[in-house]
Amino acid sequence: MRAAGGAALAALVASAVTAVALAVAAWRRARPVREVLFFPSRPCCIEALLAEAAEPGAPARPCPCPLPSGDTALSRLVRRLLSARRSLDLCLFSFSCPQLARAVQLLHRRGVRVRMVTDAQYMGMYGSQVGRLRHAGIQVRHDQHSGYMHHKFAIVDRRMLITGSLNWTAQAIQSNRENVLVVEDVEYVKAFQDEFERIWEEYNPANYIFFSKKQ
Amino acid sequence: MRAAGGAALAALVASAVTAVALAVAAWRRARPVREVLFFPSRPCCIEALLAEAAEPGAPARPCPCPLPSGDTALSRLVRRLLSARRSLDLCLFSFSCPQLARAVQLLHRRGVRVRMVTDAQYMGMYGSQVGRLRHAGIQVRHDQHSGYMHHKFAIVDRRMLITGSLNWTAQAIQSNRENVLVVEDVEYVKAFQDEFERIWEEYNPANYIFFSKKQ
Repeated sequence: MRAAGGAALAALVASAVTAVALAVAAWRRARPVREVLFFPSRPCCIEALLAEAAEPGAPARPCPCPLPSGDTALSRLVRRLLSARRSLDLCLFSFSCPQLARAVQLLHRRGVRVRMVTDAQYMGMYGSQVGRLRHAGIQVRHDQHSGYMHHKFAIVDRRMLITGSLNWTAQAIQSNRENVLVVEDVEYVKAFQDEFERIWEEYNPANYIFFSKKQ
Repeated sequence: MRAAGGAALAALVASAVTAVALAVAAWRRARPVREVLFFPSRPCCIEALLAEAAEPGAPARPCPCPLPSGDTALSRLVRRLLSARRSLDLCLFSFSCPQLARAVQLLHRRGVRVRMVTDAQYMGMYGSQVGRLRHAGIQVRHDQHSGYMHHKFAIVDRRMLITGSLNWTAQAIQSNRENVLVVEDVEYVKAFQDEFERIWEEYNPANYIFFSKKQ
């Protein structure tokens, strides 16, 4: 009797623990993302993240590069980007990091609607990934002003804002002191989404002005 | 009787309206600040804001400059800074805007503890206000690295975070597309305050390394 009672109690405790764990997991899933990433990021390999995003569930192939594949500011940023399912709106002053460009191209291939606005003076800089993204079929628009399009933000699925001081360059990621906020707060996301749509329309090539020397 | 009853009802309604107004005002005061500022800012005169902060309640003297003194992204940013009562921690890549420098100096004179960390390569650029701030007695520390100290954030009274893409330069304020978030969320403020303290200690002049050519 005593053994049976003990077993019943153990089963009860086990099911209670499972229920609590499930509730915590559900609460975590439902809780809006609030994250701060600081850079420079430790060097890391993101091949496994990209491979998993390209072919979910496929057996992992070890990468021959010597970098560790740990939890870093860069890997966290890549994970947030790769969580996009429907849309990715990029509003970036400077974009020359090949790893982030590969993540964006992968999303585009997966059918995510990617739009990008950037700065006219920086999009042609050495190492810029903008040409590569355009070549892949991603829509890119740029300004026509003397001032810089200096934003550095992304919006995932119109619900997650990624913004901060970080230009998407290898130098900034590896060497600079930088910050990135990841925010699922509706109020902030809406303000930035509205700013993106304003800029997207303003930079519509149909509105470009071509100055002629003859005039 | 009817007139007396009407007057009593009117008094009751008036006191209820006052109570609601007071409750709304208290709720507004208690509600954490959540604001997004987009730049470029319309040009504006902030003399009235600075004068009011320097001598609260003093009669306003009209400024002879032709700029309007309206509600703009710049005036909102200045108001947030001038709300500091105890401390202002600045972590700025580039600081050359004279108007913002005057606001910071005013706070310093008012007894607010101002600390600043900045980038070694940009603090000596043409128009930099860093020398002026140091001359006024404000503590400034800078990096000793090849990478940039590229943050652009301020923390008011250890409770309000002001962060974004905006360098504190006249060019950025007047000509660039930029964003600034104003956040009183404890979680975000703590993360940035911790980052500030880390950098403040790391850039302590006692830790500077002086390379000698003789070695």
